[in-house]
Parts: sequence; structure tokens; C-alpha cells
Amino acid sequence: MPPVAPLFGISPKTVNRELEHWMSNLNEVQSVINSVEPKLNTTPAKWKALSQHVKEVSEELSQIFNKEDPHYDVIMAGVQASKKFESAEAEISKNDGIRDRAMTRLRKYRDEIESLRREYKERERVRERYDHYRVKLDNLERKGKDQPRIARNQQKLKDAEDAYNAVTNELIEKMENCWKKHVEIFAESSIALWHMSMRMTDEFAQSSENVRPFVDDYLKSMKNNDSSFPSQDYMGADSPVSEPTKEKISNNDSTFDTSELKKTLSAKSVNSTLGHEEHEKQEEALEETV
Amino acid sequence: MPPVAPLFGISPKTVNRELEHWMSNLNEVQSVINSVEPKLNTTPAKWKALSQHVKEVSEELSQIFNKEDPHYDVIMAGVQASKKFESAEAEISKNDGIRDRAMTRLRKYRDEIESLRREYKERERVRERYDHYRVKLDNLERKGKDQPRIARNQQKLKDAEDAYNAVTNELIEKMENCWKKHVEIFAESSIALWHMSMRMTDEFAQSSENVRPFVDDYLKSMKNNDSSFPSQDYMGADSPVSEPTKEKISNNDSTFDTSELKKTLSAKSVNSTLGHEEHEKQEEALEETV
Repeated sequence: MPPVAPLFGISPKTVNRELEHWMSNLNEVQSVINSVEPKLNTTPAKWKALSQHVKEVSEELSQIFNKEDPHYDVIMAGVQASKKFESAEAEISKNDGIRDRAMTRLRKYRDEIESLRREYKERERVRERYDHYRVKLDNLERKGKDQPRIARNQQKLKDAEDAYNAVTNELIEKMENCWKKHVEIFAESSIALWHMSMRMTDEFAQSSENVRPFVDDYLKSMKNNDSSFPSQDYMGADSPVSEPTKEKISNNDSTFDTSELKKTLSAKSVNSTLGHEEHEKQEEALEETV
Repeated sequence: MPPVAPLFGISPKTVNRELEHWMSNLNEVQSVINSVEPKLNTTPAKWKALSQHVKEVSEELSQIFNKEDPHYDVIMAGVQASKKFESAEAEISKNDGIRDRAMTRLRKYRDEIESLRREYKERERVRERYDHYRVKLDNLERKGKDQPRIARNQQKLKDAEDAYNAVTNELIEKMENCWKKHVEIFAESSIALWHMSMRMTDEFAQSSENVRPFVDDYLKSMKNNDSSFPSQDYMGADSPVSEPTKEKISNNDSTFDTSELKKTLSAKSVNSTLGHEEHEKQEEALEETV
């Protein structure tokens, strides 16, 4: 006879530790599903945010460029690469059978666990009926009731116990089998996550192929150049101001010299604190006295 | 003499279209900087969000796995790859000289434009002084004032005009030279953006090397298998429930059969709608009549 635990005062409640064990295992599995399923659902959004970011910056940098400008080719390579990646990312996001399949399995698995939880609750009726006859028979025997009545209730208890054992064992088996599936379903979810991410990075690498040579040359020129400034190839010695710029950018001073302006201002407007009207009045006064 | 536009009623204001042209060009450049600089600043955050996402999902999927479980190797490959990428991503984010350099140049360039805007405003004093003597001389001449006084003011106008032209031409040259720098600085920003993104994707590809074989085998097994279900290699035929699971997952039916439980329940609890207490009372009544 199974172990007995007190429920409320008199009637003892039969507890099946194995059943409770599998129910709590299934709860663990479901809490993982509840956290992973929505995240797997937002994986494409994470990549979209990235492709949008790269596209926005690349396009904004190109806004005021003209075909004739130096470095126009770098800028345009970036814009085209970002558009290429954006459309690849959109295609992968809306069209990934592996991920769809993994998501579907996760959701069906959650449904299966919830359905077992309902069975687990339904089973309480059978357990209550079994405990009812256990308690009742105890009472009849303690009160020394008549034999035929005891016999009748012994049969009822027998039936209730058979039902209880049948339902419990069937449920334990289902729960154990259901629980075992998580290894396969979670493995498939992990593969789906990595499969999508690999497709995205592969697409990014392909899309940025035309930008890479510019980046590589830029890095080379940075290395070969002792100054903190790269070679002419990418830092536009072709632009007439690149030389002065270099010196100016490379230190913290104001990037140009305003002394000439200041000199001119002070030299030309002797009492620049006075408005021209006051200035004029003084002049007039002076002139009258002439 | 430069074109004249009315300011407020009497005094006409001298306008230099070239200066206004360069000021508005510089405003265009600065609006790009103001938008791009903060975005370039958040590029690492975009990648961090991605690596966090991949790591969270991979780790949560591994939470209730045991070494002995089938597919443990796929799960662990994912966890290790996500950790590897997370640390690579963190390293790139905090240590990217190319991006730091591009950001610094963008900020200094913005400072340079703002400093020119201040010069542009300072120049108004010289312009006002020039316009003042133009207007004054006009009045003196219209009023037919005495020649010495007119001559004196002609000299003042001459000096004011020289100052005005010197300051204006100096500023125009500075503005044009400053504006030209955007091609080089924006190109460097674009290279910085792509350089970081390429490093990230390269690191992701490297980190996920150990996951790729699992993904590839999974894809192969999906292809070779006519059923929507992949081969045993990755779908754990080693797990005793994998076969029934497969059939059940592949259609929309509840993934297991509850009929047996329902049968048992209805068979064993004849009037399950009545509580056992009512049930018992009926019995007692019956028994008294015996």
C-alpha cells in the first residue's frame, strides 16, 4: 500500500513520489520553453537592428557626397553592401524552415506538457475516491460494522485502488516519455538558433566583400605610416586641405588660427564697446568745436 | 560694391552670398555628424545585444541537460561558442583604434565647424561698422555737408570696407577648406563602421566553428530524409520515445492518447459528479433498508 500523508486532519492523502518527481521535471522543462521560445522568436529582430544600424550610418555618411569627391567609392561600397545585407537579412528572417520547425516543436511540446498537467489534475478524482474508501473501510472496521457491509466496501476499495494504480502508472509513463523528449527538441532549438546566426554572418561577409579591400588598404596604410595618419590612398591627399588638416586634427589645438581676425577686429574698431550711434555723436560734437 | 539688402527700414545690410553658401554647406555637414557620431558610438552595443541573445538562448537550452543525454555535445558546442563570441565581442568593443580614431576626428571636425560659426557671428561687427559708414557717408553727401568732414568719413568707410573684405574673404576660405574635409573624415567613419562589423562577423564565424558540423549534419539529415523528420544522428533514436514523438510531432493531433485514462475514469467513478460524501450518504440509506 502506498505511503500515507495527512491532508486535513482526519482523511490521509496518498502521495506518489514518482508522479510528483516527473511533474516537477516537466515544470522545469516548461520553464525553459517559456523563456527560450519567445527569445528564439526575436532572433531575426536582433539581426534586423544590426542591419538597419549599418545601413543608416552608411547612407547618412553618403548624403552630401558627389560622384567627383575623393573616397566616393568607399562610401558607395558601404551603402551598397548595407543594402545587400539588409535584403539578405530580411529574406533569412522571413524564410527559415529550420527555425520555424524548431519553434513549432517547442510550442507543441509545451502543449503536450500542459495537457499532462491537466491529466495530473484529473487524476486527483481517482486518488480521492481511493482514499475515500481506504478511510471508510478503516472506520467500518474500527466500529466493527457487519461483515457483508465491510466486504462490500473492501470490493469498492479494491476497484478504487486498481483504478488509482492504473491511472497513476499510465500517467507516470507518459510523463517520463514526455520529459525525455526535451533533449531532442532543445538540441533542435539550439541548432536552429546557430543555423540562422551562421546564415546571417555568412551573408554579412558576402555583402561586405566589396568594402573589405578598402578596409584592408586603409589598415595597411595605417601600419606603413609612422604618423598617426594613413597614406594618401585613402586619406585624400587629393583634397587640397588634407595636409593642414592632418597637423590640426593630430593635436588638441583649435584646428585653425583666428588671431588674424582678432587683430583686424581690434585694429579697425577702436572702441568697439560703443555702438556706432554713440560713436557718431562724439564725432559730431568734436566737429562742431572745429 | 557688394549687393545691398534692406535690414530694418533705413539702414541697408550688406550680404555676401558666398559666405552664406559655405555656412549652409557646413550646416549640412554638421547635421550629418550630429546624426552619425552617436550612432557610431552605439555600434558595439548592437553587437553586444546579439552576442547576449545567442548566449542566453544557448545557456538556457543547456540548463537541464546531463552529460549522459543524447545531443549533449550539440548543446555544449553552442554554449562554448556563445561564450567565445561574447568575449571576442567585448574585446573588439573596448579596443578598436580605427573606430576611436574616426570618432575623435568626427568630434574635432564638429568643433571646427562650431568655431567657424562663432567667427561667422563675430564678423557681423565688422559688417555693421562697414554698413554704418556707408549709410553715414550717403547721408552726409545727400545733406551736402562740408568737404573735410565727407573726406574724413570716406577714409573711415575705406578702412571699414577693407576690414570687412579681409575678414569675409579669410572666413570664406576657411569655411571652404573646412567643408572639403568631410569627404575624408566621412570616408574614415564608414571604414571604421565596416571594419568593426567585419571583425565581429569574422569572430562569430570563428567562434561557431565547432557548432557548424552539427548544423551541417542536421541539414544533411533533413535533406536525405523524406519524412519532415531528420535522421537518427541528431534526432536521438537513442531516446526511447523518439519514434512515437516523430509521428506525433509531425501532425497536429494531441501528441498522446488520453482515451485510456478517460475510459478508466468514467468506468470506475460511476457518478463522479457527486462528491464522495453524498455518495456515501446514499449508500448508508440503501444499507439501512436491507
